[in-house]
Amino acid sequence: MAGNSFGQFFKLTTFGESRSAAVGAVIDGCPAGLDLAREDIQKFLDRRRPKLKNEIVNSPNQSGQNFNGAEFSTQRNEPDQCEVLSGVFEGKTLGTPIAVLVRNAETSDKNYAELKNIYRPGHADYAYTAKYGIRDYRGGGRASGRETVGRVIGGSIAKKLLDAYAEKQGIKKIEAKIWAEEIAGITINENTAITTRLFEGEPFPEEILQKLKSIKEAGDSAGCILAAEILNVPEGLGSPVFDKLDAVLAQAIMSIGAVKGFQLGGGFNSAALLGSQNNADQSGGISGGISACGKTQRNAKPQDNGNKPQNNAFPSASTISFSLAVKPPPSIPAPQKARNSSGDIVEISIGGNHDICLFPRIVPVVEAMVYLTLADAVLANSISRI
Amino acid sequence: MAGNSFGQFFKLTTFGESRSAAVGAVIDGCPAGLDLAREDIQKFLDRRRPKLKNEIVNSPNQSGQNFNGAEFSTQRNEPDQCEVLSGVFEGKTLGTPIAVLVRNAETSDKNYAELKNIYRPGHADYAYTAKYGIRDYRGGGRASGRETVGRVIGGSIAKKLLDAYAEKQGIKKIEAKIWAEEIAGITINENTAITTRLFEGEPFPEEILQKLKSIKEAGDSAGCILAAEILNVPEGLGSPVFDKLDAVLAQAIMSIGAVKGFQLGGGFNSAALLGSQNNADQSGGISGGISACGKTQRNAKPQDNGNKPQNNAFPSASTISFSLAVKPPPSIPAPQKARNSSGDIVEISIGGNHDICLFPRIVPVVEAMVYLTLADAVLANSISRI
Amino acid sequence: MAGNSFGQFFKLTTFGESRSAAVGAVIDGCPAGLDLAREDIQKFLDRRRPKLKNEIVNSPNQSGQNFNGAEFSTQRNEPDQCEVLSGVFEGKTLGTPIAVLVRNAETSDKNYAELKNIYRPGHADYAYTAKYGIRDYRGGGRASGRETVGRVIGGSIAKKLLDAYAEKQGIKKIEAKIWAEEIAGITINENTAITTRLFEGEPFPEEILQKLKSIKEAGDSAGCILAAEILNVPEGLGSPVFDKLDAVLAQAIMSIGAVKGFQLGGGFNSAALLGSQNNADQSGGISGGISACGKTQRNAKPQDNGNKPQNNAFPSASTISFSLAVKPPPSIPAPQKARNSSGDIVEISIGGNHDICLFPRIVPVVEAMVYLTLADAVLANSISRI
Amino acid sequence: MAGNSFGQFFKLTTFGESRSAAVGAVIDGCPAGLDLAREDIQKFLDRRRPKLKNEIVNSPNQSGQNFNGAEFSTQRNEPDQCEVLSGVFEGKTLGTPIAVLVRNAETSDKNYAELKNIYRPGHADYAYTAKYGIRDYRGGGRASGRETVGRVIGGSIAKKLLDAYAEKQGIKKIEAKIWAEEIAGITINENTAITTRLFEGEPFPEEILQKLKSIKEAGDSAGCILAAEILNVPEGLGSPVFDKLDAVLAQAIMSIGAVKGFQLGGGFNSAALLGSQNNADQSGGISGGISACGKTQRNAKPQDNGNKPQNNAFPSASTISFSLAVKPPPSIPAPQKARNSSGDIVEISIGGNHDICLFPRIVPVVEAMVYLTLADAVLANSISRI
Repeated sequence: MAGNSFGQFFKLTTFGESRSAAVGAVIDGCPAGLDLAREDIQKFLDRRRPKLKNEIVNSPNQSGQNFNGAEFSTQRNEPDQCEVLSGVFEGKTLGTPIAVLVRNAETSDKNYAELKNIYRPGHADYAYTAKYGIRDYRGGGRASGRETVGRVIGGSIAKKLLDAYAEKQGIKKIEAKIWAEEIAGITINENTAITTRLFEGEPFPEEILQKLKSIKEAGDSAGCILAAEILNVPEGLGSPVFDKLDAVLAQAIMSIGAVKGFQLGGGFNSAALLGSQNNADQSGGISGGISACGKTQRNAKPQDNGNKPQNNAFPSASTISFSLAVKPPPSIPAPQKARNSSGDIVEISIGGNHDICLFPRIVPVVEAMVYLTLADAVLANSISRI
Repeated sequence: MAGNSFGQFFKLTTFGESRSAAVGAVIDGCPAGLDLAREDIQKFLDRRRPKLKNEIVNSPNQSGQNFNGAEFSTQRNEPDQCEVLSGVFEGKTLGTPIAVLVRNAETSDKNYAELKNIYRPGHADYAYTAKYGIRDYRGGGRASGRETVGRVIGGSIAKKLLDAYAEKQGIKKIEAKIWAEEIAGITINENTAITTRLFEGEPFPEEILQKLKSIKEAGDSAGCILAAEILNVPEGLGSPVFDKLDAVLAQAIMSIGAVKGFQLGGGFNSAALLGSQNNADQSGGISGGISACGKTQRNAKPQDNGNKPQNNAFPSASTISFSLAVKPPPSIPAPQKARNSSGDIVEISIGGNHDICLFPRIVPVVEAMVYLTLADAVLANSISRI
Repeated sequence: MAGNSFGQFFKLTTFGESRSAAVGAVIDGCPAGLDLAREDIQKFLDRRRPKLKNEIVNSPNQSGQNFNGAEFSTQRNEPDQCEVLSGVFEGKTLGTPIAVLVRNAETSDKNYAELKNIYRPGHADYAYTAKYGIRDYRGGGRASGRETVGRVIGGSIAKKLLDAYAEKQGIKKIEAKIWAEEIAGITINENTAITTRLFEGEPFPEEILQKLKSIKEAGDSAGCILAAEILNVPEGLGSPVFDKLDAVLAQAIMSIGAVKGFQLGGGFNSAALLGSQNNADQSGGISGGISACGKTQRNAKPQDNGNKPQNNAFPSASTISFSLAVKPPPSIPAPQKARNSSGDIVEISIGGNHDICLFPRIVPVVEAMVYLTLADAVLANSISRI
Repeated sequence: MAGNSFGQFFKLTTFGESRSAAVGAVIDGCPAGLDLAREDIQKFLDRRRPKLKNEIVNSPNQSGQNFNGAEFSTQRNEPDQCEVLSGVFEGKTLGTPIAVLVRNAETSDKNYAELKNIYRPGHADYAYTAKYGIRDYRGGGRASGRETVGRVIGGSIAKKLLDAYAEKQGIKKIEAKIWAEEIAGITINENTAITTRLFEGEPFPEEILQKLKSIKEAGDSAGCILAAEILNVPEGLGSPVFDKLDAVLAQAIMSIGAVKGFQLGGGFNSAALLGSQNNADQSGGISGGISACGKTQRNAKPQDNGNKPQNNAFPSASTISFSLAVKPPPSIPAPQKARNSSGDIVEISIGGNHDICLFPRIVPVVEAMVYLTLADAVLANSISRI
């Protein structure tokens, strides 16, 4: 109701401010009998977690940051170890709420008192004050990227459910493949002399690396565009009209703090196509809001020999493709003018460790939202016909 | 639950297939005491309604289609007169559910029997069958654009509520301005020798007119990109985390059948900006998911003299800006290859009257989703602080 | 949200005032592929419908009223024929919203203008005014028993779903047996010289008949207590904590306008038992909020020989038993003092045809709420384990 | 969705099993700006908490148990100290989710292993197994009374909200008065030679004390009937049709594990009254599902002189009255026959400390459900008219 829950069947509720005692999540509606260990959740959190300072020195290539890009992600001392408080017994879900807690290591407000009366540009400081008349000014409060811990907890359990569902159905596991196709304005393709899809954990191409270094030196930050393919999605997921799978996915992705745009399949490019062109293969794996294999619907193309597909006339899995725009992080050390609560313009420089670019740390968050959306859709679909 | 409701407080539920007895809507949660006449709803429906055949001849410039573009919208014989069944008494809402009905004039299935076993390219025919094991093959069933009648009913009442709220608060009325910035691949700007914003009801620029004519002659269809500004939005609307105003708006807009992409403010372009640039004025009127005037937060720009704003240091209204991609309508007379329910490839030509381009008929639908989103957010915000 | 929906999965939304154009219902979440004909709904409505005046003369023993008791139910001229507007195609549900409409035959306000400013004792007139600042004073508006048309529509479809589910599972159909165990203060048992369970459609015992006649002559009305057994309920229905099956059933039943009390199994009598006694067989078929066969849990009783049950050690069906208190209808012709909107006391006599006692007309309404509760629980339970 | 949330606006989600790491609650939808200290919650929990063993010796008259009745409540070593994890900053609610945690002190399973395969009579052991295929057999798991910690957390915050609302409106604070009117089959009235309303914290009447002692000695347990008056309820709370205030209250109260019956106002006795009698003052403070002062609606009674009420013709507060039946606790040391998971009958004696009677420990739980219901209704009502 008040914005902190996602899903109608597999329902995630998250809580926590950047500097409150803890952040965490409660999942209500996870079916009973699912194998779930603390480690299943922790390994997702480890990918989201910023590198600890000593880790960057010792092991630059771990998950969580790209090989040569860890220096562009915030360096904190929050180990983000989760504790499963309820809902799991002897390694299996009980069907009762699964509560998971992550303590906030940094709860002091020493660095933030000076920002108490200043509305940082590009942040939600002013918006929260306008809405609630009060805000937790320490580290962005509820609007901090730290709330994504709750999303990742939920997403990790959603993935377990999807995997168990696939196994039970004897179908392939759903997998979200997410990569950067633009960083700091540089499109990643054959011109960058590397593989066209830059995934989390891979080294940044040299050109991008240099660009990010100069941005970092300038005390500034960079945006990116991510693309995603969700493989092996069972057909029939999604609901008509308002809860179309792409509409819910758009909400899920756009609800991530830094995301400014979402497009499915052909997206904005579809607008320039003719119907006869667009009917072919631009659906992004969703038709009428319901996951469906584009192949079965498409306008037969020249290379299509017209024969009936062998063995499997109607493939039962769809690949959903979408992309999203991620803005540059608004917390930058470069001096900026800002308004304070008196309406005066002041100059500020935002200290502390902050991400230069949200790729790759945003990847597990996007994944989480994908898995949450699909877990909910799978449960909904289970009761869609008699 | 099953996809046919929108809103948590101002809750719209729609019903109806393209060729069922009726389409309609029930609004639960509309506050009591709101002035509401049948005509308030009808005038919105009239804009959505396709021109009746004789109307196009007699009065080409009415609402519903653009002046010289009516020929590109479907021509049917559905007058779409609504009936208010409940919830209104002596011209005022009772606080009880408002049910509104529009009879479907075309309920025969004569034109559709031949499509019974064919999955039309770009349509939801196959997807619905995959999900439900059954579909109403007459005119697209629930996946038809005809379901937008229910959206427009809801939107018209949402607008009345927003207007009453503004009046009660003594603030300006919220207004959605929506225009085309690209049609059939032609960007509308100074190069097209007309005003840069092409609104519903205005004549199409000559270049676009000719392009659409040739597309129509080829039995094909065209997409478009729409841009929108929502003026006078009170600050503080939207909720943290999952129900961010932009996330819910994205769901609302993406749930419209033909929409393939959504971006807020700077959108996909924001990804190429530096943080210092993007912090300035790319928020699209929403920060941290909450409506907020960009001006109060922004990095003071050169032309900003640093003086405190006179009288109104913190403007209490925001302008939300977004754009959306609309695909070309998939129903085209040009021959296409399609699969049938046996998995064979067949050639089809989709007869009947269909839109060549969804602009301008989609405009009141987009508006409706905007007003529904905001009406819900206004009610939610009313109880967000003590 | 605003009180007019019931169910989380099989979701019923009802609309309509006593004298609005129509009453009706939209069911969202009914699975696709269910056989459903208009007549399936109509036969339920016929039981709820008051007798038409000529029907009582010609055929006193039809469904809808008890044999010799039809004279105690309101006699109107509303045939209550329903129209299915959407969601059903070629005799099967589509998985899309099922909208059903019943026109109000009596929409004139001639009899009600005089009550415009009077708050009738025992009615919701004042309460609605206090809440909404406006009320439809014609026939009780939304608070009229006429809203139960929507419940019965929903219940009739819920029953179809439950039957289809039972057939698919190869189990017995759920059946609600509801009877009167007290009418007008007279307990129906061996002392009344008739069968102990007075069902809808059976003749009233002579003692009760005479009592009701004298109450009718005095211009007054009578209450009743109903008991119910729900047979063949699959085990495992209901959810922990807040949505216990008995809690949701209590809400469902108490939401019927005239119901003042609800008790499950031993109910209020359980409070006087010892734990050792109550553990035996007072559960009413629900344990910890979940349907479960009492037999499998109970303290073995003396007559229990200790042998393992043959063939079927753990019966998989439960019988839920509960009872409810129904107040006497508040609309009575006998003169009463009431307050008007000025706060003055006035004397009124409520004319028109009204029920003397709500049994038997309330029976299909109670049934409807039972079936709605169970249909929702069956769907919820379908996704409760992996 | 899965039963662990209550409320649509002021939404409580609880989690935790009897022997999981913790129990707790998340409240989403609590308005910002409410004064809230940990102690506000703790003092409610202290009333619910069983006495620690040493406390009973040292201070028999504290809150939590009745003076001479503490020996009838379970004696454990769970201090139940709560920790506020989020949602509160500098003593005020932020409008974000309030997460509150209580560690389970007793998490060992030593006493429960032997019950692993036994379905205890009167418990939910079998029901949970039937539903989920798995259960946490330690201390009842999610079905344990320990889940009421979450309710009490929620109720304590709901009460704070209601108080702040009353203060803001300048009206009297809502107060729930709850007392026992029957314990162990002994009705508490003038015949018991004590005050007719036995409240939490007051000494048990001698007759009841002796009865409970003998029941305890016999290894058995006792039920009770509680009555409640909710004072100073603003008029207009509750929604039509399904979410009537009494219907939601019935769900709230019936959802407490041991409650078997609920009645409003005249309740089951209303069924034996005439309409003319029942119209007078049996409404229990709710008419048509909406709180309303009975006085303004009632049939003027003889002592009513017919003058308009002075100053305040229409009192704006209602007193809601209801009662509930509480079964005897099912955990008893006396030997009982039970079935095990093989279907065999075995004899068991349930060890450990258990309540003999749930009064008075259930009182703060009932209160919590009342305040949660009303807090939600107050928020809902805030947006019920323009």
